[in-house]
Amino acid sequence: MEKMPISKAFTLMESGPVVLVTTTDGNKNNVMTISWTMVMDFTPIFAMTTGSWNYSFAALRKTKECVISIPTVDMLDKVIGVGTCSGADTDKFEKFMLTPVKGKHVKAPLIKECLANIECKVVDIVEKHNIVVLEGVAAYFDNARKEKRTVHAVGDGTFIVDGRKLNRKKMMRAKLPAGL
Amino acid sequence: MEKMPISKAFTLMESGPVVLVTTTDGNKNNVMTISWTMVMDFTPIFAMTTGSWNYSFAALRKTKECVISIPTVDMLDKVIGVGTCSGADTDKFEKFMLTPVKGKHVKAPLIKECLANIECKVVDIVEKHNIVVLEGVAAYFDNARKEKRTVHAVGDGTFIVDGRKLNRKKMMRAKLPAGL
Repeated sequence: MEKMPISKAFTLMESGPVVLVTTTDGNKNNVMTISWTMVMDFTPIFAMTTGSWNYSFAALRKTKECVISIPTVDMLDKVIGVGTCSGADTDKFEKFMLTPVKGKHVKAPLIKECLANIECKVVDIVEKHNIVVLEGVAAYFDNARKEKRTVHAVGDGTFIVDGRKLNRKKMMRAKLPAGL
Repeated sequence: MEKMPISKAFTLMESGPVVLVTTTDGNKNNVMTISWTMVMDFTPIFAMTTGSWNYSFAALRKTKECVISIPTVDMLDKVIGVGTCSGADTDKFEKFMLTPVKGKHVKAPLIKECLANIECKVVDIVEKHNIVVLEGVAAYFDNARKEKRTVHAVGDGTFIVDGRKLNRKKMMRAKLPAGL
């Protein structure tokens, strides 16, 4: 996993991949599956919808830290497994053989097996709408990984795998931040 | 375009496709391209990030109504065109040959050429974060359309086209609302 410029971290999230979000309560690491996320502007600011129905939420609220880990299609069954059990009674890192890796800025762990990881601080919680606003503070990408296709939840139990990539950089030049 | 149950409208949005959002100020229809959206729970409540930098925002704020239209990959260059000019000086429906269709619940138009349309009411604007919270009130899907692949913006001028679809309904049954 190599470090990538934090200014480019939004490009890991904007396409809407299913992500894993790790937390720690100081004693135990936990991880949840989230597909309700949103990029906010060309910045490392992200929103996600979650609340007390997720066991991770207590640690997220207490520590104000998490890591967004981006899995690929070969990890789909693990990702669904993580999303369909609870950290209240399960050590999900152990059960799904995910390897926690120490981050630099937050205590929540990166996941070694994922394509990318973003260390995040909670900057706000919009209680009325269960929206957690996160700021990415460091990002990492595993260039050596062969499988780079992410998956997108449809919401009905089906998932769309990344297909072809189309380049429209030229058409969009005027709308993009410099350096992208 | 056939009507679809509004309870399933979130399945049109959860994968994170680039969408068009239409508004009307009473005199003129307008349309913007948005990829910063988020599903909120298994409901027809959606968030999007936008603000006064979009000309459409004034009409959205005034009328508290819009339509989310979901284009497919064959429409990508139009979608980028819509996103790189302004309704302040352009009739985008005319320029990009989009056909406005009258909705039932809002004055903003559906777009005939799109795969799906969701009539929406603005239920809140979280000014601090430029988040607009929308409630879908009616949804439509064009079953007759051959091309059904949507596109996902990466944010750097490249776009990911929908690839294979994987079915994990059985694994996810316990987590999904009934009837999906």
